Amino acid sequence: MQDISAIDKASILVEALPYIKRFHGKTVVIKYGGNAMLSEELKEGVLKDVVLMQLVGMRPVLVHGGGPDINSVMEQMRMKVEFVNGQRVTDENVMEVVEMVLTGKVNSSIVKYINQNGGSAVGLSGADANLLLAHKQRARIPTPDGGQQMMDLGLVGEVESVNVDLLNSLLDQGYIPVISPVAVDRYGESLNVNADLVAGRVAAALQAEKLMLLTDVEGLYRNYNDKTSLISVLPARMVEGLKNQGVITGGMLPKVDCCVQAVKQGVGSVHILDGRVLHCILLEIFTKEGVGTMVINK
Amino acid sequence: MQDISAIDKASILVEALPYIKRFHGKTVVIKYGGNAMLSEELKEGVLKDVVLMQLVGMRPVLVHGGGPDINSVMEQMRMKVEFVNGQRVTDENVMEVVEMVLTGKVNSSIVKYINQNGGSAVGLSGADANLLLAHKQRARIPTPDGGQQMMDLGLVGEVESVNVDLLNSLLDQGYIPVISPVAVDRYGESLNVNADLVAGRVAAALQAEKLMLLTDVEGLYRNYNDKTSLISVLPARMVEGLKNQGVITGGMLPKVDCCVQAVKQGVGSVHILDGRVLHCILLEIFTKEGVGTMVINK
Amino acid sequence: MQDISAIDKASILVEALPYIKRFHGKTVVIKYGGNAMLSEELKEGVLKDVVLMQLVGMRPVLVHGGGPDINSVMEQMRMKVEFVNGQRVTDENVMEVVEMVLTGKVNSSIVKYINQNGGSAVGLSGADANLLLAHKQRARIPTPDGGQQMMDLGLVGEVESVNVDLLNSLLDQGYIPVISPVAVDRYGESLNVNADLVAGRVAAALQAEKLMLLTDVEGLYRNYNDKTSLISVLPARMVEGLKNQGVITGGMLPKVDCCVQAVKQGVGSVHILDGRVLHCILLEIFTKEGVGTMVINK
Amino acid sequence: MQDISAIDKASILVEALPYIKRFHGKTVVIKYGGNAMLSEELKEGVLKDVVLMQLVGMRPVLVHGGGPDINSVMEQMRMKVEFVNGQRVTDENVMEVVEMVLTGKVNSSIVKYINQNGGSAVGLSGADANLLLAHKQRARIPTPDGGQQMMDLGLVGEVESVNVDLLNSLLDQGYIPVISPVAVDRYGESLNVNADLVAGRVAAALQAEKLMLLTDVEGLYRNYNDKTSLISVLPARMVEGLKNQGVITGGMLPKVDCCVQAVKQGVGSVHILDGRVLHCILLEIFTKEGVGTMVINK
Amino acid sequence: MQDISAIDKASILVEALPYIKRFHGKTVVIKYGGNAMLSEELKEGVLKDVVLMQLVGMRPVLVHGGGPDINSVMEQMRMKVEFVNGQRVTDENVMEVVEMVLTGKVNSSIVKYINQNGGSAVGLSGADANLLLAHKQRARIPTPDGGQQMMDLGLVGEVESVNVDLLNSLLDQGYIPVISPVAVDRYGESLNVNADLVAGRVAAALQAEKLMLLTDVEGLYRNYNDKTSLISVLPARMVEGLKNQGVITGGMLPKVDCCVQAVKQGVGSVHILDGRVLHCILLEIFTKEGVGTMVINK
Amino acid sequence: MQDISAIDKASILVEALPYIKRFHGKTVVIKYGGNAMLSEELKEGVLKDVVLMQLVGMRPVLVHGGGPDINSVMEQMRMKVEFVNGQRVTDENVMEVVEMVLTGKVNSSIVKYINQNGGSAVGLSGADANLLLAHKQRARIPTPDGGQQMMDLGLVGEVESVNVDLLNSLLDQGYIPVISPVAVDRYGESLNVNADLVAGRVAAALQAEKLMLLTDVEGLYRNYNDKTSLISVLPARMVEGLKNQGVITGGMLPKVDCCVQAVKQGVGSVHILDGRVLHCILLEIFTKEGVGTMVINK
Repeated sequence: MQDISAIDKASILVEALPYIKRFHGKTVVIKYGGNAMLSEELKEGVLKDVVLMQLVGMRPVLVHGGGPDINSVMEQMRMKVEFVNGQRVTDENVMEVVEMVLTGKVNSSIVKYINQNGGSAVGLSGADANLLLAHKQRARIPTPDGGQQMMDLGLVGEVESVNVDLLNSLLDQGYIPVISPVAVDRYGESLNVNADLVAGRVAAALQAEKLMLLTDVEGLYRNYNDKTSLISVLPARMVEGLKNQGVITGGMLPKVDCCVQAVKQGVGSVHILDGRVLHCILLEIFTKEGVGTMVINK
Repeated sequence: MQDISAIDKASILVEALPYIKRFHGKTVVIKYGGNAMLSEELKEGVLKDVVLMQLVGMRPVLVHGGGPDINSVMEQMRMKVEFVNGQRVTDENVMEVVEMVLTGKVNSSIVKYINQNGGSAVGLSGADANLLLAHKQRARIPTPDGGQQMMDLGLVGEVESVNVDLLNSLLDQGYIPVISPVAVDRYGESLNVNADLVAGRVAAALQAEKLMLLTDVEGLYRNYNDKTSLISVLPARMVEGLKNQGVITGGMLPKVDCCVQAVKQGVGSVHILDGRVLHCILLEIFTKEGVGTMVINK
Repeated sequence: MQDISAIDKASILVEALPYIKRFHGKTVVIKYGGNAMLSEELKEGVLKDVVLMQLVGMRPVLVHGGGPDINSVMEQMRMKVEFVNGQRVTDENVMEVVEMVLTGKVNSSIVKYINQNGGSAVGLSGADANLLLAHKQRARIPTPDGGQQMMDLGLVGEVESVNVDLLNSLLDQGYIPVISPVAVDRYGESLNVNADLVAGRVAAALQAEKLMLLTDVEGLYRNYNDKTSLISVLPARMVEGLKNQGVITGGMLPKVDCCVQAVKQGVGSVHILDGRVLHCILLEIFTKEGVGTMVINK
Repeated sequence: MQDISAIDKASILVEALPYIKRFHGKTVVIKYGGNAMLSEELKEGVLKDVVLMQLVGMRPVLVHGGGPDINSVMEQMRMKVEFVNGQRVTDENVMEVVEMVLTGKVNSSIVKYINQNGGSAVGLSGADANLLLAHKQRARIPTPDGGQQMMDLGLVGEVESVNVDLLNSLLDQGYIPVISPVAVDRYGESLNVNADLVAGRVAAALQAEKLMLLTDVEGLYRNYNDKTSLISVLPARMVEGLKNQGVITGGMLPKVDCCVQAVKQGVGSVHILDGRVLHCILLEIFTKEGVGTMVINK
Repeated sequence: MQDISAIDKASILVEALPYIKRFHGKTVVIKYGGNAMLSEELKEGVLKDVVLMQLVGMRPVLVHGGGPDINSVMEQMRMKVEFVNGQRVTDENVMEVVEMVLTGKVNSSIVKYINQNGGSAVGLSGADANLLLAHKQRARIPTPDGGQQMMDLGLVGEVESVNVDLLNSLLDQGYIPVISPVAVDRYGESLNVNADLVAGRVAAALQAEKLMLLTDVEGLYRNYNDKTSLISVLPARMVEGLKNQGVITGGMLPKVDCCVQAVKQGVGSVHILDGRVLHCILLEIFTKEGVGTMVINK
Repeated sequence: MQDISAIDKASILVEALPYIKRFHGKTVVIKYGGNAMLSEELKEGVLKDVVLMQLVGMRPVLVHGGGPDINSVMEQMRMKVEFVNGQRVTDENVMEVVEMVLTGKVNSSIVKYINQNGGSAVGLSGADANLLLAHKQRARIPTPDGGQQMMDLGLVGEVESVNVDLLNSLLDQGYIPVISPVAVDRYGESLNVNADLVAGRVAAALQAEKLMLLTDVEGLYRNYNDKTSLISVLPARMVEGLKNQGVITGGMLPKVDCCVQAVKQGVGSVHILDGRVLHCILLEIFTKEGVGTMVINK
């Protein structure tokens, strides 16, 4: 940081006033994943942002991912890591490791980090008080001919309902819920669920003001090669067209679908942010222009 | 302000984290007077600082002075303005003007300013729900021979009790109480009271974390002519000595006595701040070193 | 008072039972102005009535006027007092005096009187927590040919909204709100507002059981010269006809319009009372017949 | 009642202000028995007084007696009515009738009367939620030689504890508890208890402001034949002396002992009132001098 | 009871889990009358069942009958006991005895029994806080020719409204309300009301999960002589047909009408149980099959 | 289970009444470990017992162990499993696996099982809201000569404080907290802690009524070979003597020390139960004699 005088620092705090006021008491769900979880500096940035949000009166909720850790433990255990079109093939043995790593390692580590930095977090998995109730679901896999095929990848699920009572009571008491994306079905079986989709469902269930997806891209580009073509605001009704034009493709497709679904279910706005940028969350909330791409229900 | 990048702004917000956390839910009483009331820029600085304090979870209470306005209205009304040793001679007619100006003009103006800037203030005078109950008191006036003389300056009073119920209920509902230093005695008669002393009594009654007196000096100097001799921390037990050494004299005497009494009655610390410095309140709260002179109960 | 035995006194208290029961917990807004503010005996009568109302479980709210005091201070300050058709011409200098006198003198005096007589009052102006939010409005002035003309009288406003949260929280805690008819616009500028209209808006916002306007007449007469023609109950739907018949004219026109608007917005009944009659408020509430003219929504 | 003008009636209400204020929220226990239960006019007087007390914010609790009704039902059932020294001999059959009459007839009748007159009463016996838990006790009977003898009169008990939770919750919800003096022991057996003593224990358990015993005498006289010798205020410490002087004798002895015990256990004051005087309760509360004899803890 | 091992006992408790869970927080109204009130063993069974219901989190409310006790006291008082078609002829003298016995004897006895067995009951009659407000009603008496005739049986009433506030507040505090079927009309006069109908109205007013009528039959039989023809579940829409077929006749007619009305007004189900079977309430609630006849709104 | 009639089942439920009543609202902490975690039947027994406890109004808290699972995952990951005197040597790599298995596998599995069986559990580790704050501690290892030696086994800790706020708020909302025995130190580092000791500290912090340690022995024997010498009740003051006599030795030493410490810190009683007996928890609570050994503070 450049050298900034105390007076200027005070002015910057005062500049934040209208944003603090506007988001006071508002719920913000953050999907925390990708590179932002790998660098210590970025991790520190994200989690301090979350603590600040809570201290100035917002109600942040974290949903985390955790792919790399799962693979490394599986490898250590000599288990075969298998993906089909980016989705993990999950039998019972794999599911046990997924749950163990996400809930017992990644989640715990985030909780401890927040608590070390002035916040107070409580880790949750979808099993806690049936927080994330899901059912098994076959995956939608693209075929070479451009069509789609339903495929059984094992213990993979889709969230049906979210226990908002537990979340709201923790938020009311000043705790930051940190959610591991492991759901449970009606028979008590654990299911692997996509963290983006969990974040979307949680945000919808809480009728959150904002959902923020931390990704490894700057946002959505009209033309991926032209860095000046970033789409700042994306009305949901324009998404279908952009898909047809080939602007939204590949891994962005499910992410954008998740955004659209969330705003249609009542989330104020969804933000695709670049988790590789330090303090990207605060930048979105506390600056006039915002950063990344904002999806709104229009 | 110099040109500061968005990232640096975010870092500055994050730097404030430990201070926000530390003062969350804490009551801070501010005596607002002197030059800080006269310049529009300083006024804006002080009142935005107060709004920020409230938004990040503190419970600020303002007590204001208002001398110059009283004199100007009195002059417009062709009334004689009379002071003995810095204290206003206050007969019934004068008291009526004092009350009218402090409560109906100065107080209203502060309330409106805060409400315009994102806060929510409620103006109070000592008469409201007997907020400041006082009794008449003769003034202590120094004699030429260095002694003291009790003198009746009219409707001048000393606060006996503070109705904390009213203050706490307004604070609990998120309002900033702005207090006009007009007290009322048991017979319903208004009394002129010193704003510093009111602030001290209010802070003690609320068991405030901090009392901040905005003055027109940088703080207390060990040697007034040596700007490097500012006393940063002044333990109450050392005050008597400094008086004897002639370090604390003149107008500073009652101010320092007020500070000592407040910390002895349970206020965490009292700060003599330079109201002529922009954002002096935030600087005190959000920087490691603090500014001005802090009196503590040691 | 004639000599009344203790037993008879007890019987009178018991006679009040059904009225106390009926109005328990009900909000009653009182516009206090005119002669009832000028005589010490009448003032004592009104304010003790208000304290009694509160003690037996009603929720009284006072809105006061204050014309004579404003004029006298303006004259003392050598300012020109100017009215057009009964409405004060209000430039910035005048507004400052209006606010100072209403909020800093008249309001304070009522608050102190109530607190001296067993009640607990809190004075408010429209600026407090934006209690009375208004916009500037040109006045409707009759022309010699019987028409109307819009005229700019300066900082004169019309109330848009009332912050009932502040009023209800004070009432819930057992305080009597005393409201000075100075409103504030969205830019923080003070506006002079008619006290009758303020009382009407406050009563409507609180969905009051009763609004009582203390005036200097016995009520509305069908024939002003025939003292037996007092209209006890006036259904709102009959007002238009009475205007056309010339029964309601002059200064009574805006007052009756205010009454009609209040009952149409949900106030139970509006009472035009003779503030020159001692205890006129209690007489209206605690006697079978009531006094003055009652406007109802029929 | 003499002819009293409306204005005078209003003045009388206003005169009651300081008393209403003083007793607001205070608990007053009334032992209702004797002649005040027999005349319709007196009954109406007492119960309307109680309703008024509640409406102006006091918390009245009624404990009733009921001797004559018991005797008349017993006679109708051809049962032998037997007293030893004023205390009923109570076997199981008698107890059943006592309970049936007190709880099913006298209590119900009072409850209905209060509910008809604007109050809201709930009848209770000592069995409800073990309101009055007692143990069997032999009676203390005077012998001809001036001594005392313990005598088993059957199912006669002494109250050990009072379930104040039930009473306070009913009072908090605005109900007037009406208590039938039938207690219950640890084995679920009903016991006949003296209504004065029940009222004393209830008042002590509730830490009542006042206990009022409605009797058939004007109060306590220093010399019973001299109507000017009524004792207005009787400090508890003087009772022993008055017993020795023969001023307190016979049926007054247990009543005065009950008063002394109540004030010693924290009841503010106990009043021996003449239940034959219309509105004796209001006269005591709302007049400066009070009536009857007041026992205080001095 | 046969000899059952501790382990088996524990298993039985665990078996009750799903039923405890299902009825947690649910209101169940029980009409307690007939033989179940006469045998000590059955009484103990019923009331212990009720206490258990409360302890495991249900909200039981009891409405009792009491015919035999009334007759026996009336006979002891040499009063004429007169019935027309099973309904008591009730003049003022009879009503006084009915109230005295039901409220002062039967109700008290149940309250004491519950309190002795680990529960906490509060006895209520319809007069308490106007719990059961009724109006006088002529009885519907069958004529020899199969028609009906309206007949004035005196102080007999029909319930109009139930004060659920009082019941809910007692239930919320963990008390079991025990209701004596004596209602009160708008003039404060007591009226005799049918206990089945009171239970039905109370259950409807509380929107109870279940209403249980304890009778002296096993339930409703399709063919009374064929013990295998018990109707387990009776949809309300089939009642009319069964009446026409002569399956429901005589004393069962009003009982079944009461059941139908209750389920139509929102009670979950109504159960006609055999009060002569020990623990019939628990058997209904805690066994898969249930016992007796259940009327449902289908 | 033998064939038991419905009536007998109802009687058994009723027999439980006094125990349900006695423990209503009481907190019971259960250390769940050993064989009771290995057999499916026993697991079902323990967890259904816990659900029943909650449904009948108790506040159960579970602390679990989990040794075998840790070893098996470590072995699968080719890590060396090392114990010194029964305590695990825990370096950073081991700690990561311990946390992952206990929190992400064992804890989750218990939570899911409870939720499947009618309860509502929330899994917690010591990191959540700093539930278990600990510091690193060297282990006390016996030396061959009968002395003791302090030994550094790595990341092994001792609990300093328990965040009862989080536990109480979950209990108040009807959740069963399931605690994984992983603590966290002031620097955010995870520490391995003994589950018995965690259960003891949690029970003390909650001032629990009972602490139950599920073990693989019937209880404490005076003479281990004589099965009739089971000690039912063990006053804490006698423990020292029994140690000296060699009655308490080996693995029982730390367990009994933990019991003694818990009762000395305010836990009502501590029970050493045989987790191999089906429904051992219910047997302890719902039978007169209790099972196992109960340590009390006498």
